[in-house]
Amino acid sequence: MPNPANAYNELITLVKEAALLGSIGSLLGWDERVQMPPRGADHRANQSSLLARKVHEHGTAPRIGELLAQIEAAKTADPDRAANVREIRRQYDRATKLPASLVEEMAKTEVLAQQAWGDARAKNDFPAFAPWLEKWVTLKRQQATCYGYTGHIYNALLEDFEPGETAENLSRVFESLRAPLVDLIGRIVASGRRAPLDILERRYPADGQAKLARQAAAAVGFDFNAGRLDVSLHPFCSGIGPGDTRMTTRYDENYFGDAFFGVLHETGHALYDQGLPHEHFGTPRGDAVSLGIHESQSRMWENLVGRSRAFWSHFMPKARAVFPDQLKDVTEDQWYFAVNDVRPSLIRTESDETTYNLHILLRFELEKALLTGDLSVPDLPAAWNQKMKTYLGVDVPDDARGCLQDIHWSGGSMGYFPTYTLGNLYAAQFFEQARQDLGDLDAQFGSGQFAPLLTWLRENIHRHGKRHRAPDLVQQITHRPLSAEPLLNHLRHKAAELYGV
Amino acid sequence: MPNPANAYNELITLVKEAALLGSIGSLLGWDERVQMPPRGADHRANQSSLLARKVHEHGTAPRIGELLAQIEAAKTADPDRAANVREIRRQYDRATKLPASLVEEMAKTEVLAQQAWGDARAKNDFPAFAPWLEKWVTLKRQQATCYGYTGHIYNALLEDFEPGETAENLSRVFESLRAPLVDLIGRIVASGRRAPLDILERRYPADGQAKLARQAAAAVGFDFNAGRLDVSLHPFCSGIGPGDTRMTTRYDENYFGDAFFGVLHETGHALYDQGLPHEHFGTPRGDAVSLGIHESQSRMWENLVGRSRAFWSHFMPKARAVFPDQLKDVTEDQWYFAVNDVRPSLIRTESDETTYNLHILLRFELEKALLTGDLSVPDLPAAWNQKMKTYLGVDVPDDARGCLQDIHWSGGSMGYFPTYTLGNLYAAQFFEQARQDLGDLDAQFGSGQFAPLLTWLRENIHRHGKRHRAPDLVQQITHRPLSAEPLLNHLRHKAAELYGV
Repeated sequence: MPNPANAYNELITLVKEAALLGSIGSLLGWDERVQMPPRGADHRANQSSLLARKVHEHGTAPRIGELLAQIEAAKTADPDRAANVREIRRQYDRATKLPASLVEEMAKTEVLAQQAWGDARAKNDFPAFAPWLEKWVTLKRQQATCYGYTGHIYNALLEDFEPGETAENLSRVFESLRAPLVDLIGRIVASGRRAPLDILERRYPADGQAKLARQAAAAVGFDFNAGRLDVSLHPFCSGIGPGDTRMTTRYDENYFGDAFFGVLHETGHALYDQGLPHEHFGTPRGDAVSLGIHESQSRMWENLVGRSRAFWSHFMPKARAVFPDQLKDVTEDQWYFAVNDVRPSLIRTESDETTYNLHILLRFELEKALLTGDLSVPDLPAAWNQKMKTYLGVDVPDDARGCLQDIHWSGGSMGYFPTYTLGNLYAAQFFEQARQDLGDLDAQFGSGQFAPLLTWLRENIHRHGKRHRAPDLVQQITHRPLSAEPLLNHLRHKAAELYGV
Repeated sequence: MPNPANAYNELITLVKEAALLGSIGSLLGWDERVQMPPRGADHRANQSSLLARKVHEHGTAPRIGELLAQIEAAKTADPDRAANVREIRRQYDRATKLPASLVEEMAKTEVLAQQAWGDARAKNDFPAFAPWLEKWVTLKRQQATCYGYTGHIYNALLEDFEPGETAENLSRVFESLRAPLVDLIGRIVASGRRAPLDILERRYPADGQAKLARQAAAAVGFDFNAGRLDVSLHPFCSGIGPGDTRMTTRYDENYFGDAFFGVLHETGHALYDQGLPHEHFGTPRGDAVSLGIHESQSRMWENLVGRSRAFWSHFMPKARAVFPDQLKDVTEDQWYFAVNDVRPSLIRTESDETTYNLHILLRFELEKALLTGDLSVPDLPAAWNQKMKTYLGVDVPDDARGCLQDIHWSGGSMGYFPTYTLGNLYAAQFFEQARQDLGDLDAQFGSGQFAPLLTWLRENIHRHGKRHRAPDLVQQITHRPLSAEPLLNHLRHKAAELYGV
């Protein structure tokens, strides 16, 4: 007779080993982007692809399926175990449900379509990319069919990034966000007020920026004995494993905002990583809930904390100490306004806390329509441009700065974009609750106390790993389902303060 | 019917995959020593040990034995293939001949004995380490028996580091080196001349040292697009794979010599690595001949090139440009003398080009005697101290600076030490030949031309991988067997010039 307890232990050993191999892959990836000499690229590709194969072999071993079947036959009262079995089953099914031919086709298409996208964007030539996007739509539909789904076809893809969330629920919440945001941004633009952006565009040498960014990361709780901050072309945060969380940034010496808020953003990801229960490393119980919840942590520290007046009343003297000349004629009010500038623009990655969400809503709506066939690929540019005009009042001059701007679709990532706005929504909703639970957060930030908020996040979110799915976690912590209200309140409050609207 | 050609291709695929996994382990090791945050150590140990297990599983797969047997049954005329089969057989046998119980016992002893050694050295307490050394002697004898050997038992262990070399031959060459060296050093000391070491002990800021070391590494041919130079506690060079060779150093701001010559040393290793035939990566044909040959490359660039008068006549102006104040009252003659100081001392790793070899000969003789039982462990300190007196005229004040100074024996490395002096011997013998083949090397170095020597090394040594074993390679390149004469000639020549002896 198989013994469910033994089966469970064997299962955990197997998935931990796969995760340990995967974490070696994370180190290869970090090194590739931060340290590797250029001529090492071919060898690194060989190393990474061998390791990816080993990880895949481990994660799809038939033994995992046998063990899951044995374990699922018996009920368990242990919530940790239940969460692990639930998530291992999900991952195993998703890893094994796709036929090898589809996996190979997608891997090949990823390489070729990304190349075609890069060329097409450089030449502003959407028709050159269109066949690849057609191909991806076809492949993503096939993938969704293999996975299976209920409701909208989008749900099958969303499940990879935000398990338990649905396109129907997202549509409901996003639509309650959209009209008020469009209205708010319209009133901001109409106010005629403009933030003094020039004070961010002075010369800020990289070493000073690095010093200040490190101070900020350490101040909010990043443990530099259990992590690093380095430079890379595209900023990211990579959890190599317990005790080793690495983030990167890049310094533009003629613009203050990117690196500083970028580091606070990555620090938010890193604090989540450093707060996961390390004893559960390699199992879902020790892993982050979802991309959206991960993003809520980065957005909270970047925006709700890092762009708050209270943060800068504490941090402005430190910035002045590092950049005395650059900041000598700058008041705290001016600085606070500059780092909270709201301005409709063409490019998602350069957009501000408020307009950002409309860039995401637009993509979510177009992705859904492409998948259902309500929108055909050739009609995408027109649909994109029309939404940009309606939502943000922006005229798109060319596709390179329009529907070709993001790499995501060329790599087959559909269902990913909404996690960005989900992050903003979760962040605001959690933050509102933290404010209720912890009292005057502004007073705390103003005196440099960030530990109460971090402790609250550790207690309510980080330490639980994947025990709860995102929708349940939100309900549990804030006593209501996901809502657009907290984010709207936050953005309206700032708009009233800075733009008088 | 098994087909030897197919069998050979399958074998190469298997060993390449094992090597690719092993190269991932090299990256883990580099990162651990150069980048890893301190709290990442436990997780790194888990990653490394899993990977080591996978490498071992790949390298000892019974399929390799089956394939070798099929291939060996047929003769081959292809020298590359012959070399690969010969070396894969050797590695496979050595990896599979030891019983698991002995492997485990050695792994455990390595951890415990190194810990005991660290404590014993700190407390100058040889008796506390003696039982661990006894244990290692026993284990190394068992290991030798499992491997099998002809002649001296030492040969079984030497084979791990210097395949094809024998204790008998080493004893012959080392003994022809010993008496002349003892004599030469005695005359140097008696000369009463002393190098002006104080000029190396001025304040040399780390960034200046790094700049100069990079200049030197690049000047002699290190490709920084295919490698890196970083800082670590103990300097090393690690070939991650084709296009990715990483070396490290550390900077003592109050001593010029360590980092600069350390980097030249590691550059010598790195140039060998960068010169291996990359298309054969992962097979013996693409790998370095032996530790001794590897060391010959590092010693050649460090000592025969880097400490030559010609090198400094080219490089002194560059050093003055970086350190104008430190060097303004220093003549080239003084500098040349200082970097070639010969002075008997207690510690191997701090010793100079000439006395270094006697530190090695002493260890080689004691290792052999321990293994045969001619020397008992309790008698080791007295034997050590007596040889230090006889060879170098040095009185050993305590065992911490005597027989406890090196980590090697505590980790079970016996048979390793001679490769250091082998490196010096090979280097001198190769260099003498290069001088014959290439004409006036001094004139070339003096005008900053190091490419002819590097090309000669690439042509004669690097590109061959493991095609020839070290003794054959020496014979082939220099038309005679390994000899002490070239090294003695080199050292005598310098001693005559600098000490008038």
